[in-house]
Amino acid sequence: MCVQKGIALSGYVSDGFIGSYQKLITDTVIPYQYDILNDRKEGAEKSHAVQNFINAADVLKGGNGNDGFYGMVFQDSDVGKWIEAAAYSLINSPDKELEAAADRLIDIIAAAQDTDGYLNTRFTVTDKDKRWTNLLEAHELYCAGHLMEGACAYYEAVGKDKFLKVMLKNAEHIYRHFITEGHEGYPGHPEIELALMRMYRTTGDSRCLELAKHFIDTRGVDPYFYAKEKEKRNWTVWGNDPYNFDYQQNGRPVRELSDATGHAVRAVYLYTGMADLAALTRDTELFAACRRLWESITGKRMYITGGIGTTVQGEAFTADYDLPPDTAYAETCASVGLMFFAAKMLENEINGEYADIMERAFYNTVLAGMQLDGKRFFYVNPLECVPGISGVSPTHRHDLTARPGWYACACCPPNVARLIGSFGKYAYGENRDTAFCHLYAGGTVSFENGVRLECKTAFPYGFDVDYNIISGGRIAVRIPSWSRDFSLTLNGEKINAVPEKGYVYLDARNGDRITLRLDDSVRVIYPSPKIASLSGRAALMRGALVYCFEGVDNDGDVLSLSLAEKGEAVPCRAEGLPEDVTALSVECLRSSDSGSLYTDVPPTLTKIKATAVPYYTWANRGVNQMRVFIGR
Amino acid sequence: MCVQKGIALSGYVSDGFIGSYQKLITDTVIPYQYDILNDRKEGAEKSHAVQNFINAADVLKGGNGNDGFYGMVFQDSDVGKWIEAAAYSLINSPDKELEAAADRLIDIIAAAQDTDGYLNTRFTVTDKDKRWTNLLEAHELYCAGHLMEGACAYYEAVGKDKFLKVMLKNAEHIYRHFITEGHEGYPGHPEIELALMRMYRTTGDSRCLELAKHFIDTRGVDPYFYAKEKEKRNWTVWGNDPYNFDYQQNGRPVRELSDATGHAVRAVYLYTGMADLAALTRDTELFAACRRLWESITGKRMYITGGIGTTVQGEAFTADYDLPPDTAYAETCASVGLMFFAAKMLENEINGEYADIMERAFYNTVLAGMQLDGKRFFYVNPLECVPGISGVSPTHRHDLTARPGWYACACCPPNVARLIGSFGKYAYGENRDTAFCHLYAGGTVSFENGVRLECKTAFPYGFDVDYNIISGGRIAVRIPSWSRDFSLTLNGEKINAVPEKGYVYLDARNGDRITLRLDDSVRVIYPSPKIASLSGRAALMRGALVYCFEGVDNDGDVLSLSLAEKGEAVPCRAEGLPEDVTALSVECLRSSDSGSLYTDVPPTLTKIKATAVPYYTWANRGVNQMRVFIGR
Repeated sequence: MCVQKGIALSGYVSDGFIGSYQKLITDTVIPYQYDILNDRKEGAEKSHAVQNFINAADVLKGGNGNDGFYGMVFQDSDVGKWIEAAAYSLINSPDKELEAAADRLIDIIAAAQDTDGYLNTRFTVTDKDKRWTNLLEAHELYCAGHLMEGACAYYEAVGKDKFLKVMLKNAEHIYRHFITEGHEGYPGHPEIELALMRMYRTTGDSRCLELAKHFIDTRGVDPYFYAKEKEKRNWTVWGNDPYNFDYQQNGRPVRELSDATGHAVRAVYLYTGMADLAALTRDTELFAACRRLWESITGKRMYITGGIGTTVQGEAFTADYDLPPDTAYAETCASVGLMFFAAKMLENEINGEYADIMERAFYNTVLAGMQLDGKRFFYVNPLECVPGISGVSPTHRHDLTARPGWYACACCPPNVARLIGSFGKYAYGENRDTAFCHLYAGGTVSFENGVRLECKTAFPYGFDVDYNIISGGRIAVRIPSWSRDFSLTLNGEKINAVPEKGYVYLDARNGDRITLRLDDSVRVIYPSPKIASLSGRAALMRGALVYCFEGVDNDGDVLSLSLAEKGEAVPCRAEGLPEDVTALSVECLRSSDSGSLYTDVPPTLTKIKATAVPYYTWANRGVNQMRVFIGR
Repeated sequence: MCVQKGIALSGYVSDGFIGSYQKLITDTVIPYQYDILNDRKEGAEKSHAVQNFINAADVLKGGNGNDGFYGMVFQDSDVGKWIEAAAYSLINSPDKELEAAADRLIDIIAAAQDTDGYLNTRFTVTDKDKRWTNLLEAHELYCAGHLMEGACAYYEAVGKDKFLKVMLKNAEHIYRHFITEGHEGYPGHPEIELALMRMYRTTGDSRCLELAKHFIDTRGVDPYFYAKEKEKRNWTVWGNDPYNFDYQQNGRPVRELSDATGHAVRAVYLYTGMADLAALTRDTELFAACRRLWESITGKRMYITGGIGTTVQGEAFTADYDLPPDTAYAETCASVGLMFFAAKMLENEINGEYADIMERAFYNTVLAGMQLDGKRFFYVNPLECVPGISGVSPTHRHDLTARPGWYACACCPPNVARLIGSFGKYAYGENRDTAFCHLYAGGTVSFENGVRLECKTAFPYGFDVDYNIISGGRIAVRIPSWSRDFSLTLNGEKINAVPEKGYVYLDARNGDRITLRLDDSVRVIYPSPKIASLSGRAALMRGALVYCFEGVDNDGDVLSLSLAEKGEAVPCRAEGLPEDVTALSVECLRSSDSGSLYTDVPPTLTKIKATAVPYYTWANRGVNQMRVFIGR
C-alpha cells in the first residue's frame, strides 16, 4: 500500500536518550493527556474534546447534544494528535490497555461522522449551516488533517483500518465539496495538505493527492478569497483580518513565495505539504519555492535553538535578522513543524543541512517545550528570561518564567508527544538503494530496502555512534556541519571518507561494525552582526546542544557574565538536573555593578567559573534568570 | 501678584544654541502650527482645533454648530499649547502680528465658554449631557489645564488678562463642580493639577490651590472610582479599562506611590503637580513620595537619553531595568514632562541631579523630537533604528525611521515648542537670596531678587560658560555630575570651590566676571549590567550630549561596530549636519560578517574610524541605521 518515493522514512528507535524520552511519553505524557481529553484531570484547564465527539454523535442520532460543544474551534485536533502519539507509542511499546483506549476513542469519533462524511464536532453539535463557510477561521480542514494523521499512524502502528476508513470517507467528502462541487477556498490554517499527502501515501487513494495539490495550487491565486468569504458570512470566530496576506501565506500563489512570513506554525505546515508534494511529483518549481522559503527561515529568521516565529503578535515571522532573545515567541509547535518541513526537504534532496536543522530544532526548542518530568509545557521558548520583566512587562507577557500545566489552546503538548514518539521517522530514511542515518538515535531499525541495523549511542551527550549491521547494504551516515572533526571506522579500521553534502556512503555487509566519532568540543557561536539584539554576545554549543546560563547555577545573576577570552569550557555536572545531563564549567568574567543606571566608570571584571546547562533543561529548577547569548 | 516660593523660575534666554532654537520655534514652528490649527496646511493631518471653538460658540448662541466637533477629545489642548508657545515667543521676540493672532484666538476661545464657566468644545458642540461623566477618558480637565497654562503664560508675556479671566472662571466652575457640589473624581490624564498650581501662582486665587490639592489628595483613595463611573455612563471614547490602576496611577493614594508606572506622560504630569504642591506647602510627606518616584524613574526606568516610558502598549513604564533600545517608546512629551517634574523637584530641594536630568532629557530626547528644520516631529525616540525592522516588525511599528509631519494626535510638537520657548524657566531659578544657574544658556537674565547677569556660552558644544554680573548678589552655579573636572574663575582668578549638592555658591558684585570651564572629554558610558538588552555595549557622551552612530557616516552599517579598547574619540565634523554640530571620530572595530546566521568562526575585527553624531541630530539625513549603544 505504500507509495512513498524518494526516502521512505521508517524505523523506530527504542533506547538511549531518545528511548528514555519515548518512555516518558508513553508512561507519563500519553496517560496524562488522555485524562485531560476526557476531563479527568483535577485543576487542569477543561478540554471537553472527547465529550464534543460524544455530543456530536448524539446530535446525529437526533439527540440534543448533551452539554453542547466546548473549547476552541480546533478542539477536535487534540484527539487526532493524541491518537497519533498513542500509535507511535504502541509501535515502540505494545500495550493492550492503551490500544483499547484508542479503539474506544476511534469508535467515539466514527459515531460523530455525518452520513455524508463530514466530521467536525463544532459544526455538528450546532451550527450545521455554518459548515465550510469560514475557511479562514473555523479550522475544519485543520482538524480533519490531524484526524487523518492520527488515522494513518494508527493504521501503521496496529494495522486496524477503522479510523483510516472514517478519514478516507471524510477526505471523499472534502473532495466532493472542493473538487466535484467546485466550492472555492483553501484552509486558514494549513495542515490538511500534509495530512492528505500522508493519506495518499498510506491508502494510495489518488483523490487525496489531487486534493492536497488542489489546496496548494489554489492558495493565494485569489488573495481576496477570505475577504469575499467574510462578506458572505455573518459570523466570526476571532475577527481575523482577511487582508492579512502575510499572516495567511496567501498574498500570491505559493510557488512565488520567497520570504517566510506570517503565523510560523501555519507557514511550516504549509511548506511541509508543499515539499512533500514536490518530492512525490518531482515538481522542481514547487521545490524551488520550498528551497527559497527554507533559506529565508534558516538563513535569516531562525533562532540558534531552531525556534522560529519572532513575535507573539500573530505568533509570526517578522523581518530578516529580527531575532530578539528575550521577547522571542519561538513556539514549540513551530519547531515541530520545522522538523516536518526539513524531513520533507530531505525527500527532495539529500543534504545534511536539513538534518542539521531537524537536530537543532529537536534537541533545543522541541525538548525545551516539555518539562523534564513530562508534566508541564512551554508554548513560547525565549532565549533569555529575566524574572521581574519576563512574563510581566507588556512586551514580555508571553515569555513565561516557568512551564504551565495545560493550556486552553493545547496544541504544543500533543505535538511534542507525537514528535518524540515518531523520532525514528526523522532519524532514519531510505531510498531504493540506500539506508540513511540522518540523526543519531539508539535502537534497531529495519529499512524496507532490506538494510537492518542496530545503533548504539549516548548522543547528544556521547559522541560515539556505533552501527552494527545486521543486514547489509548501502548506508549513508550524516556528518553534521557542527562536527569539525570526525572519524569513521569499519570493523575497527579507519576509513578516509569525504562527506558528500553532509553524508558519507558505505557499502556494509552483514556483521559489519561502523563507528562514527564526532567532535565533542565546546563551540563558541557568534551570531550574525546583522542580529542587532545580539551584538557583542555569543553562545555555547556542544554537539547539537545549545547551552544556556541559569541563575540557579550562577549566584542568581547571569546578565553580568561574559565569556573570558580563550576561556575554557569543560564538561561538568549541574546540581538538580538528571545525572545524564552534561553541563559545562565555563571561564567567564563577571562585571561589577556600580548600582548606577549609567556610569562612566568602567566595570571591574572578575574571572569566575560559571556553569552552563543544555538549553532544553532550563526552568526545571525554579524561577530564575536564563540567557543563551552572554557577552563575549 | 506672584506668590511663588522656593525658587522663582524666571528669566528668558535669547542667544547661543538655545537662542537659535527659540528663533526656529518663533520663525518656523509657531507659524506652521498656527496654520495647522486653522487647517490651512495642505496635506497635513486635519486639526479643526480652532474651528471647534468657533462651532462651540455658535452652539452657545443657539446655532447648529456648523460642521460640528472634529478630532480627539483633547483637541482643545493644542490651542492652549500653541498660545503658551506663542506667549514665550512674544517675550523673547515681541511681534504685533503674532500677538494679534493670539488675541484673535483668545476671543474665539472666550466665546466658546458657557455661561457657567464650562469650557470644552467636545461637550459644547454636542453631548452637553455627557459633561463630567467620563473623567477617565474625556480629557475635559486635561484640556482645561492646557488652556490655563496658556492663559498664565500669555498674561506673563504681554500682561493681557482676558484669557486668564476666562480660565479663572473655568477654574471656578470646576471648583464648584468638584468641591462645592462634591462630585467625586479625579482626572484620567493628569495636567490640571500642575496647571491649577500655576493659576494659583499667577492669580493668587486660593481656590486654584485648594482644587489642585483636592485632585492630588483624592486620587487613588478610591481606586474603583473609574469603574463606578463607567457603570453609570453608557458611552466610551476608547474603551479604556477602568481597572488598569498602574496605567492611571490610581491604585492607591499618590502619597503611597513608589514605582513610576503606567502612561509615562500622565505619570510625570501628575508628579509635577505633586512636587509643585509639596514645594509650595512644604509637604514633606508628599515630597517623599515624589522623591521615591523620582528615584524609580531616574535610577531604574530611564533611557540614557532621558527618555521614559519603555513600551508602546499604553505608552507606559514597564519594569525596572527594562530598557530595550530598539523597541523604546520614550515619547517626546514624556521627556518634556520629566523636565517639568525635575524643575519642581528643584523647588523642593536644591540638588544638581534634578538639573542633570533636565539637561539630559532636553539635549537628547526633547531635541530629537524635532527635525533640525523644525518641520517634522518624532513622538517615539528609540535608541536604535534598523531599517527593515524598525517601523516594520509588529514589535517595532511605532519606532519610525523618519520624523512624520503632523499627527492626528498632536501632543508632542507643541510641547516641544513651548518647552524650548520657556527654556529660561528651566535654566534659571531663584530663592530669596540666591540666583541659580541650573543650565547653561546664553542671554541676559533678571532675577526678582535683584541679581542680573549676562551668560555667554556655546554650550552644549562649547564648555566655557561666562557670567557677566550686571547686578550683583549671591549666585549658585551648577557643576554637572558629568563634569569630572571643572575650573571656576572670578575676574580671571581661580576659585577653589567645592560644590554642595551640585552647586558652587559665590557672592558676586556688579561687574564681576565668572567663568566656568567644564570637562569637554568624551565619556564612555556603561549601562547597568541589569539592563539585559545592553549587555556588552556602551555609549558615548560629551558634556550633556549622548552620541549615536548613523549608517550615513559609517558605510551603512553600524551594527557591526564596537568601541576599540582605549580607542580615541576626537571632535570632528559630520557631513550634512549644521556647522555648529560637533561630531566625534571614534576608533572602532568592525566585525566581519560571515554571511551565516550563526557561526563558530570568530569574526575578524578591523580597526576603523567611525563617526558618531549627537543623538538629537539623527534621522536628519535620510533613512539609515542608527544606534546609541554599540559593542565594547
